[in-house]
Amino acid sequence: MTFEIKYKDARGRVGILKTPHGRIKTPALMPVIHPGKQILPVDDYGADLVITNAYLIYKNDLLREKALEEGVHNLIDFSGPVITDSGSYQLSLYGDVQVSNQMIVEFQEKIGTDIGTSLDIPTPPFVKRERAEKDLEITIQRAKESLEVRDKMMLNSVVQGSTYLDLRSRCADILGSMDFQVHPIGAVVPLLESYRYREVVEVIMASVTHLPDSRPRHLMGAGHPMVFALAVALGCDLFDSAAYILYAEDDRLMMPNGTYKLDKLQEMPCYCEVCSSHTPDELRGMAKKGRSLLLAQHNLEVSFGEIRTIRQAIIDGSLWELIEQRCRSHPYLLDALRILKNYQEDLEKYDPPYKRSAFFYSGPESLNRPEVYRHLKRLQQIPKKNKVLLLPPSDKPYSQHIAAISGKFYGTKKGNFENSIIKKLLEPSEINLPLPAIKDIQIVVVDIPFALIPLELDQVYPLAQNESPTNYDEDAKEMVRKVLQNYIYNFEETVISENVLKSFDLDLSNLDLEKEFQITETVILGVEDLDRIVYIADYQFGYGAGRALFNGPIKVVKSRKTGKIRHIYLDGGEGDVEKLIATLRASDGVFVLASEGARRLHQYFPYPRNRVVINQEAEPFARKGKSIFAKFVINCDIDIRAKDEVLIVNEDDQLLAFGKSVLNGMEITDFNTGQAVKTRKGGF
Amino acid sequence: MTFEIKYKDARGRVGILKTPHGRIKTPALMPVIHPGKQILPVDDYGADLVITNAYLIYKNDLLREKALEEGVHNLIDFSGPVITDSGSYQLSLYGDVQVSNQMIVEFQEKIGTDIGTSLDIPTPPFVKRERAEKDLEITIQRAKESLEVRDKMMLNSVVQGSTYLDLRSRCADILGSMDFQVHPIGAVVPLLESYRYREVVEVIMASVTHLPDSRPRHLMGAGHPMVFALAVALGCDLFDSAAYILYAEDDRLMMPNGTYKLDKLQEMPCYCEVCSSHTPDELRGMAKKGRSLLLAQHNLEVSFGEIRTIRQAIIDGSLWELIEQRCRSHPYLLDALRILKNYQEDLEKYDPPYKRSAFFYSGPESLNRPEVYRHLKRLQQIPKKNKVLLLPPSDKPYSQHIAAISGKFYGTKKGNFENSIIKKLLEPSEINLPLPAIKDIQIVVVDIPFALIPLELDQVYPLAQNESPTNYDEDAKEMVRKVLQNYIYNFEETVISENVLKSFDLDLSNLDLEKEFQITETVILGVEDLDRIVYIADYQFGYGAGRALFNGPIKVVKSRKTGKIRHIYLDGGEGDVEKLIATLRASDGVFVLASEGARRLHQYFPYPRNRVVINQEAEPFARKGKSIFAKFVINCDIDIRAKDEVLIVNEDDQLLAFGKSVLNGMEITDFNTGQAVKTRKGGF
Repeated sequence: MTFEIKYKDARGRVGILKTPHGRIKTPALMPVIHPGKQILPVDDYGADLVITNAYLIYKNDLLREKALEEGVHNLIDFSGPVITDSGSYQLSLYGDVQVSNQMIVEFQEKIGTDIGTSLDIPTPPFVKRERAEKDLEITIQRAKESLEVRDKMMLNSVVQGSTYLDLRSRCADILGSMDFQVHPIGAVVPLLESYRYREVVEVIMASVTHLPDSRPRHLMGAGHPMVFALAVALGCDLFDSAAYILYAEDDRLMMPNGTYKLDKLQEMPCYCEVCSSHTPDELRGMAKKGRSLLLAQHNLEVSFGEIRTIRQAIIDGSLWELIEQRCRSHPYLLDALRILKNYQEDLEKYDPPYKRSAFFYSGPESLNRPEVYRHLKRLQQIPKKNKVLLLPPSDKPYSQHIAAISGKFYGTKKGNFENSIIKKLLEPSEINLPLPAIKDIQIVVVDIPFALIPLELDQVYPLAQNESPTNYDEDAKEMVRKVLQNYIYNFEETVISENVLKSFDLDLSNLDLEKEFQITETVILGVEDLDRIVYIADYQFGYGAGRALFNGPIKVVKSRKTGKIRHIYLDGGEGDVEKLIATLRASDGVFVLASEGARRLHQYFPYPRNRVVINQEAEPFARKGKSIFAKFVINCDIDIRAKDEVLIVNEDDQLLAFGKSVLNGMEITDFNTGQAVKTRKGGF
Repeated sequence: MTFEIKYKDARGRVGILKTPHGRIKTPALMPVIHPGKQILPVDDYGADLVITNAYLIYKNDLLREKALEEGVHNLIDFSGPVITDSGSYQLSLYGDVQVSNQMIVEFQEKIGTDIGTSLDIPTPPFVKRERAEKDLEITIQRAKESLEVRDKMMLNSVVQGSTYLDLRSRCADILGSMDFQVHPIGAVVPLLESYRYREVVEVIMASVTHLPDSRPRHLMGAGHPMVFALAVALGCDLFDSAAYILYAEDDRLMMPNGTYKLDKLQEMPCYCEVCSSHTPDELRGMAKKGRSLLLAQHNLEVSFGEIRTIRQAIIDGSLWELIEQRCRSHPYLLDALRILKNYQEDLEKYDPPYKRSAFFYSGPESLNRPEVYRHLKRLQQIPKKNKVLLLPPSDKPYSQHIAAISGKFYGTKKGNFENSIIKKLLEPSEINLPLPAIKDIQIVVVDIPFALIPLELDQVYPLAQNESPTNYDEDAKEMVRKVLQNYIYNFEETVISENVLKSFDLDLSNLDLEKEFQITETVILGVEDLDRIVYIADYQFGYGAGRALFNGPIKVVKSRKTGKIRHIYLDGGEGDVEKLIATLRASDGVFVLASEGARRLHQYFPYPRNRVVINQEAEPFARKGKSIFAKFVINCDIDIRAKDEVLIVNEDDQLLAFGKSVLNGMEITDFNTGQAVKTRKGGF
C-alpha cells in the first residue's frame, strides 16, 4: 500500500504517500502545470508533486509525441511525482472530449504518470437527481474499466454525485471497495466559487465517511488557502492550485483569510518576500507579465505556508484552533463551521483524546468540538454518588484552588428527606473533606466549555488544559443550563453555589431549589486518592476499569515536587517495576499502563475490547516489545481512539504486549501500511 | 502641529506624523535600537522610525561623547526620525537611575533626538492606590519640568496611573492640556506578559478618551503583533519592538496569532522569506548567532507585515473584521474584545458610518460593533407609522427579493380594535402595496445583525452590505428578541411572520400575539419613493431632515439600468444642476447633498447643527470650493461623524459651501493640521 498516517488531529492527518517518483508528505498542495507553457519553477516554492492534464497533452501532436518518447516528467521538467487529470474538466466545460476513457487511461500509463485518472463525469451541484444518477453510473463504470486497463500505474477515482449526499456516499462506498490509490472529491468548484461552504462540508463529509481511511483524498479544484484548514480537518489530504496563477493574472492576492485586489491596495498586507520588498504602486507600475509572475509567487508562497501551518497544527493538536480562526474570515465559512455540530459523533471517533496543545475557546462553535462531546459522554461512565455539590470555577486545576468554600448556596431534596449535604456543610467541624461520612457527595465544578467537571477529574486532559473568556456567550450558558439540569436529576440531593446560578442565568424554579443558606465558616474540600485514580481510569478506559486496575491492596506514590499522584503499585511495590500497575502522565493526567495494569485490564475487559489482535507472524516481535504494523493486525476494537492505551493480543486472546495506539480502531482495521501501535512493553 | 489623519476606522487612524527627520506614516512600529550593538539593518525591513535609549547613551562615556559630537542619528546609523526613552524603564527595573529629569531631557535635545521623553515613573499594575497617586504626581511634575527645559525638541509625555482607570484619565487630561507632541501609554508590559488583555483595553480606553485626538499615542512596550490590531482599533498609533530580537534570541517566532517555539516545530508555519527558505532542522542546526539573526528577520517581517495589514484594513473599513479574527488566537484576547461592549457609545462616535467594506459577522462580538449600536439608535429618528408587519429575511436588498409574501402569520392588537393589517392582508386584491389605504403599515425585516430593518432603509449602508451565518448563535437571537419586543410596543397593531418567531425563538405569549392566520394568495409589498427618500434622509441626518429636504414639489429620477433612485430635483428640474437637491450614492445608499439640499438643511437645522464653522480668513477659499483645513475651523457640531455630509458656514452662520467631513466633530475641534472637510461645492 501507498499511504500511511504519522499524526492526526480532528479528521486531519499528516501522512506519507508513496509514489514511483518519491514519497510525499500530506497534506500537500499540487500546483497545476499547464503542459508546454509553465512559467514558474514551482519546486522552488515547495511543490513536492504536481498535477497536469493528460488530455491537453494527448490532444496536441507535439506534446503527445514528446510525452510518449520522453515521459511526462521530462515534458513538464519536474522530477517528483506527477498526477494527471483525464479531460473531465474539459468535459464539464465543453460537454464533450475527443478521447475515450480507455484511451486516456492507457495514454497516462504510457507517458509514465505516477497517478492517473479515469474520465469521470463532473456533475455540477443542484442538477436534477435523474441526471446526477445517470452521470454517476457512467463515472463508476469508467472507474471499473480503468482498473482493467491499467497495468501498474496508481489510479485516482473521483467521487461524484452532485449535491445528493446519498449519491456521494454510495459512490464512495463503491469506489472504495475497488483497488484505487487516491480518491479525488469532484465537482465542488461551483460550490466554492459561490461561497457555498456549507454544502462543501456536506459533500466532503458524505464522501470521506464512506471512503477507506487508508487512501488520500484530493479536494479537486480547491486552490484557495482560505479553505485548506477546514478541508484538512474534515479528512482531505491533497489540493491542487491553478488559482495561484489565475488569480495572479487577474491582479489578485490570495491570503489564508481572503483575497485582496491589487488595484485597491495602498499597503502590501502580507509579509512574504514579494510583499515585503514591493509597494502596491511599484507592482502596478510594472509590465503585466512581470507583475503576474510576482503575484503568482506571492500566491504560491502563501499557499504553501498555509499547508505547512496546517501540518504543524495537526502535529501540535491545535487544528481546531486554526480552523476556528480561519473560518472567521467569511460569514459563510462560519456557517460551514457551525454545521460541524451535525457530525460530532463521527468527528469524535477520529479526533485524538490527548493533545500537546491546550483547548482554546474561540466562540460558540468551540462548544461543538469533539472534546466537549466526548467529555459529556464519558461523564456517564464514571462512578456514581448519591449527592452533588456544584461549585463555580476557580483557577485550574480546580482542586488546588478551591480547597475551601464559603458563601451563599441553595439546596434541593427529592421526596421527603432532609437535605443532608446542607446539614453537613453547616457543621464545618465535621466536614473537612474527604471524610467517610460524606464520601457520597460528588463535588463538581461548573465551567465553560466542559460544563461539569467532577473534582476527581480536574487534572485530566483537556479538563485542566483549556482556556475560555470569563465573559460567557449565551450559547455557552445555554449549554451549561441544559447539561446541568439533566445531570442533577440523577442525584438524591443537590447543593449549588449562588455564583453558579448567577453566572449561567440558571432558573431557581426549573431546578426545584428551595433551601437557601449561607456558609460562613470555611469548609475544606478535597479528593481522596483512591477516588481520583478510579475516576480517571473509568473516564479513560470505561466504567469498571478503575476498580479492576486498583483492586486489592495498592500503594499510591506521589511526586515530591508537585504532590501529584505519579505511580500506582501493588502494595509494597514502590520502585518495583514488576509491581507497577500504571503511571499517571504529568502532561495530561491520564494513565500509562504498566505490565500489571495491562494484565488486569486484559482480565477485566472481554475480547476484543481495548485490544489490537495480531497474526502469528508478528507475535514474536510483539512479545519482544517491537511496535505493531497495521498489516499484521487481524482484528481490533473498533472503539479505540488514536493515542489510547491498548492491549496487544493474538487470536487466542493471549496478552502479548501493550502500547499506545497511533490510529483509531477503524483506521487500524483499514490500513495495511505504517504503524498501528507504538508498543510500550512486551514480555508476556 | 505635527500630526494629521488620512483614514479612520473604529478608533484607529492612518495618519502622518511630521518630525525634523521626516514624515512617518502611522500606525508605525519602531524597532528598539540598542545604541552601540545593533545587529540588523532595521530600515531594510520597513522601519521608518526607531526608538533608542538616551539613558544608556548618557551612561556610557564613549557613546555619550560620540552622540554629543555627531548626534544620535549618526551614533545609531539611522537617518530617519529617532525617538529616545529617558531611562524610565531602567528606573522600573532597578528602582533608581543616575540622572535627573532635567539632565536627561537636556541631553536628548543636545544629541538631536526627534522626540524626547521625560523621566516618568512607570507604576506597575495592581499596586496600592497610594503608591500610584504618589508616582503620578512625580510623573506629572517631571512632565511640566521637561516643557520648561526643552528648546525645540518634540516631547513624549507618558500616561501613567497603574490600573486605576480614573488616575489614567486624570493623567491624560493634565498632560493633554500641555504642549506635548506624542503620548505614550506606559507600564502595560506586565499586563501584556500575563495575558491580561482585558485590563490593557481598560487602561488604553481610560487614557485615549482623555487625550487630545490630535496627538499620536504610543503603546509602550507592546511589541507582539498579536495585539497590534486591537490596540490600533482603540486609538494607538505607535508601537515599539525589542521583542523581535528578544524572542529571536530565545528561539521563538512571533506571528499575528501567537508564538511558536522553534524546538517544537517540524514545519515552518509562515510564508516569510526566512520560513519559506529554511526548514526547522536547518535553523536548529545553525550556530546560535546566525539563527537569531534569521529569526529576528522573521519577527520583523511579520511585525511590519501586520502593521501594513492594519493600515490597509483602516483604509478598507475592515478593521473590525481584522480584530475579530486576531482576537480568536487567545481566549483572553477574546475576553478583551468582548468588553468593548462597555465602550459602544464612545466607539460609535469615532467609527465612520460609511465604509468601503461589507460588515462581516464573525460571532456574538459582532453584535457589539458600532454599526449595530448606531443603527438601533438611528431607528428612533425615522418617521413613525401606526402598524408594523415583521418579515423574515430574504436576499439583500430585501425590497428587491420580498416583493411578495405568503404563509402563516400572527397578529396582535392593542385595546379593543380589530387588527386592520390582518384584514388588509387577507383581502389581497386591495393590498398591492404601496397603496394609500395601508400607508400606515411599517414593513420591517428581522435579521442578524441589525435586528430590525424598515424596508425603506434596505439599501442604506450597512443594512444591505453585510453578511451573517444563517445558523444563528444564541446571543444574536437574544438581541433580536429584546429589540423586537421593545419595538412593537410602540405600534397599535403588529403582524409577524411565523418564520420570524421560529428563527429567533420568540415566545408568543411575551409578544401578546393572539390571532393566527394564513395568507394563501400572494400579497405584493413595496416601498413608495417618497417614503424611501424621507426615511433615508432622517436616518442619515436626523429626524425631520427628510421633510425639510424634499418639501414641496420634487422629481425623483431613477437609474435606467438598476431602477434605483439616483437624483432628487425640484419639480421640473431633471438635469438642471441648480435644481438638484441631493443624489443617492449607489455604493452605500445615502445622500450626497447638492446646493439646493445644502440650503434646505441649513435652513432647517439650527446653528451649529451639522455645521463646520470657519474663520474669516478661510471664507473666500470655502466659497471657491476649496477644501477646509482644520486650522481654520473655529466651531463645529460635535456630533458630526467622519464621512458625514456637512455644511460649511461662517461665524454669522452664512452658508459658504458644503462637503464631506474627513474627521468627526471632536477631532475637527481638536486638530490644527490637515483636512477637516473635503468641500464638494462652494459658490453661495
